[in-house]
Amino acid sequence: MRTKILLDEDAMPKAWYNIQADLPAPLAPPLHPGTGKPVTPDDLAAIFPRELIRQEMATERSIPIPDEVRDILRLWRPSPLYRARRLEEHLKTPAKIYYKWEGVSPPGSHKPNTAVPQAYYNRQEGIERIATETGAGQWGSSLAFATALFGMTCTVYMVRSSYTQKPYRKSMMQVYGAECLPSPSERTASGRKVLADYPDTPGSLGIAISEAVEDAVNHPNTNYALGSVLNHVCLHQTVIGLEAREQLAMEDTYPDTVIGCVGGGSNFAGLAFPFVGEKLRGRYPETDVVGVEPTACPTLTKGLFAYDYGDIAGLTPLLKMFTLGHDFVPPAIHAGGLRYHGVSPLVAHLTDAGAMRAVSYHQNEVFDAAITFARTEGIVVAPEAAHAVKAAIDAAIECRKTGEEKVILFNNSGHGNFDFASYDIYLAGGLPDYEYPAELIRESLAHLPKVG
Amino acid sequence: MRTKILLDEDAMPKAWYNIQADLPAPLAPPLHPGTGKPVTPDDLAAIFPRELIRQEMATERSIPIPDEVRDILRLWRPSPLYRARRLEEHLKTPAKIYYKWEGVSPPGSHKPNTAVPQAYYNRQEGIERIATETGAGQWGSSLAFATALFGMTCTVYMVRSSYTQKPYRKSMMQVYGAECLPSPSERTASGRKVLADYPDTPGSLGIAISEAVEDAVNHPNTNYALGSVLNHVCLHQTVIGLEAREQLAMEDTYPDTVIGCVGGGSNFAGLAFPFVGEKLRGRYPETDVVGVEPTACPTLTKGLFAYDYGDIAGLTPLLKMFTLGHDFVPPAIHAGGLRYHGVSPLVAHLTDAGAMRAVSYHQNEVFDAAITFARTEGIVVAPEAAHAVKAAIDAAIECRKTGEEKVILFNNSGHGNFDFASYDIYLAGGLPDYEYPAELIRESLAHLPKVG
Repeated sequence: MRTKILLDEDAMPKAWYNIQADLPAPLAPPLHPGTGKPVTPDDLAAIFPRELIRQEMATERSIPIPDEVRDILRLWRPSPLYRARRLEEHLKTPAKIYYKWEGVSPPGSHKPNTAVPQAYYNRQEGIERIATETGAGQWGSSLAFATALFGMTCTVYMVRSSYTQKPYRKSMMQVYGAECLPSPSERTASGRKVLADYPDTPGSLGIAISEAVEDAVNHPNTNYALGSVLNHVCLHQTVIGLEAREQLAMEDTYPDTVIGCVGGGSNFAGLAFPFVGEKLRGRYPETDVVGVEPTACPTLTKGLFAYDYGDIAGLTPLLKMFTLGHDFVPPAIHAGGLRYHGVSPLVAHLTDAGAMRAVSYHQNEVFDAAITFARTEGIVVAPEAAHAVKAAIDAAIECRKTGEEKVILFNNSGHGNFDFASYDIYLAGGLPDYEYPAELIRESLAHLPKVG
Repeated sequence: MRTKILLDEDAMPKAWYNIQADLPAPLAPPLHPGTGKPVTPDDLAAIFPRELIRQEMATERSIPIPDEVRDILRLWRPSPLYRARRLEEHLKTPAKIYYKWEGVSPPGSHKPNTAVPQAYYNRQEGIERIATETGAGQWGSSLAFATALFGMTCTVYMVRSSYTQKPYRKSMMQVYGAECLPSPSERTASGRKVLADYPDTPGSLGIAISEAVEDAVNHPNTNYALGSVLNHVCLHQTVIGLEAREQLAMEDTYPDTVIGCVGGGSNFAGLAFPFVGEKLRGRYPETDVVGVEPTACPTLTKGLFAYDYGDIAGLTPLLKMFTLGHDFVPPAIHAGGLRYHGVSPLVAHLTDAGAMRAVSYHQNEVFDAAITFARTEGIVVAPEAAHAVKAAIDAAIECRKTGEEKVILFNNSGHGNFDFASYDIYLAGGLPDYEYPAELIRESLAHLPKVG
């Protein structure tokens, strides 16, 4: 009876799984924000390398992972698959709970799975510097890590409120040699404009995206990179699910329930898509695939499936996705990585097609699950990952009631070593639970762009 | 060419290696601080469980690891052995650099290797609560983790200055359900006395030890636990070196140089003792075993080999060790885990016998090595572990000069996720280098207790 199911690094996937090959209908194309016409590869070439643009639109099922990328991924991959035996005992459930542990990457989450190939393809095409934005800092520190290993430089625009509240994520970026600026900054025209109008603004992901894109457009040999939402990002994350499938096969099993938390959607996609792909191809059709989101930002459970901008300023292409409206600002919950008004178009498409479903939780019950997990399995998870923990615990408790011996698999996407301030507030009883912000959502959905 | 050498959890050692079986001469016994006579098991029974007292004095070579302990250790053990290929390339060295990565434990260091068996043996003997002290918090959070998994409670007296500067280590203990108090506290007579005399004291490990021991003595079903220095602690850590020997054998190799940082000595002992044991038994006699300490607290390189107290107040048994004097207070360097006036009697004995040697470094060169490591191998290490990194880099550079293809093995004892404030100061150029505090050492060595 093993606790950790390990794969040797030679067993790391040699290709990513592209779910676009198996979709019941093609994905709705991204539209140019100016013309409303489908975006062309040339439109994107100002800020992305050709190969990532190709992957964004690719429909072949399998895309090889370059050796140079695998050579860095193997610093921590394949990640371990855990059987959560101590949690199962605590819950007195007949279910078997497995989790993929992505906190073993040096920056501590799944984000480097895509930061490394993104840095690699940029380097291959002669790019020497990447500009990006980051919210809580997981993505920024992961891109800083990846660019360091390829000898590139990196500038990260970090939402000012996070920059102040989570100074050590910034420090990590600097240790890796990256530059980290609080956004809005004086560095860009869009930053300066916001600062002139609102000198005390806490910043937002929307503003930070505008700054990073502007930086990339205006500097030589500089591109932009995004840590979630886009198809190529979800593609790169599929190493998680491909490894998990292999590891479960070593245990002679296959999951009945597959669970991941959903912000932009990339860690969810990474674990779930290889299993959703089986389902779409008619195998294991009963697999229950569950995205978990915060009640305070209920994109999949309460949003509209419609075209919307990816950022607040409306500079990005229009994406067909579930959205709460691009000017929806969710309450300040502690799972910063799940505070996004939209979601990956692939995840939205699969939800709309009924290939997966979504649930939402309040943050106190999520932290409660995280405490149970820490005191049984020993690992302190990030608040984002704690959403998946909560859903897995609920599924296991349901099995206790029904007596079913289901196999539950969830993505434990990162550690909570930078989130203890949030745990402190929870343990002191000071964490508010927000209801669905129905009024705010109604208002922001009224501002959806007109399309066609 | 592998980067990570992994062992399946079934290959985790089933017994600890006890170097007392192979010492050239018996260890000098600890002496009672009151009588000056060798301490008896009964003297220790007020605060330690019988089995740990037995292990402290045991001379058999192999001591079985209980199944219940292995069942928890396998949550992260066997830990990976890495070949530092990217660092080797960067250094252009013909040497092969391997490191054991102990940062994969949930609390992030090697400390749980002994926290788990210590909690287990206490639980076995009916103890329900453990009191301990902690400096920077690695040990306190590891004992909190271990006691949580055995359903025990735990009170940690944390040196007040660390409690204030590293609030998230305290938070981690609380997430695991432990109580963490700033020391000196109002909870104990010794704490109250210090507070009355020095209300603004930053606290010290010596004061915190006194509080924890007093707590253990005065509460029912409560024992005391120590995270380093003692023989049974070094014993429990030998899983590190036993695994490493196995993993290197999978690579068909054996180390020429074995390196670990030395504070109390437990992470060093954990990696090195199985290799020192081979040497003591006449195999691989040329192995170079190196302890690394800070110039600011040069216990092995500048201390005396003499009997001294383990704490500042002189409450503990007298231990024969290298010491800078029990009232020596080292400068406030950022590797808090290496700021100890004494060292494990076993490590001292082996140094005195010439079976190992010691070197010391200034903290700026140590942080410089840590930055090189982060930007090549991707891992941000704790300042303590960075001392071992620095010595390994120097050994590899020496090989570049001589052309020797040496095999260098070091213990990477923990991650730096709670140490970014120190990295910030280093990157800003604000870290002072302290010379050997020769005058202070002379003074404190004049206060050594008279023995015999």
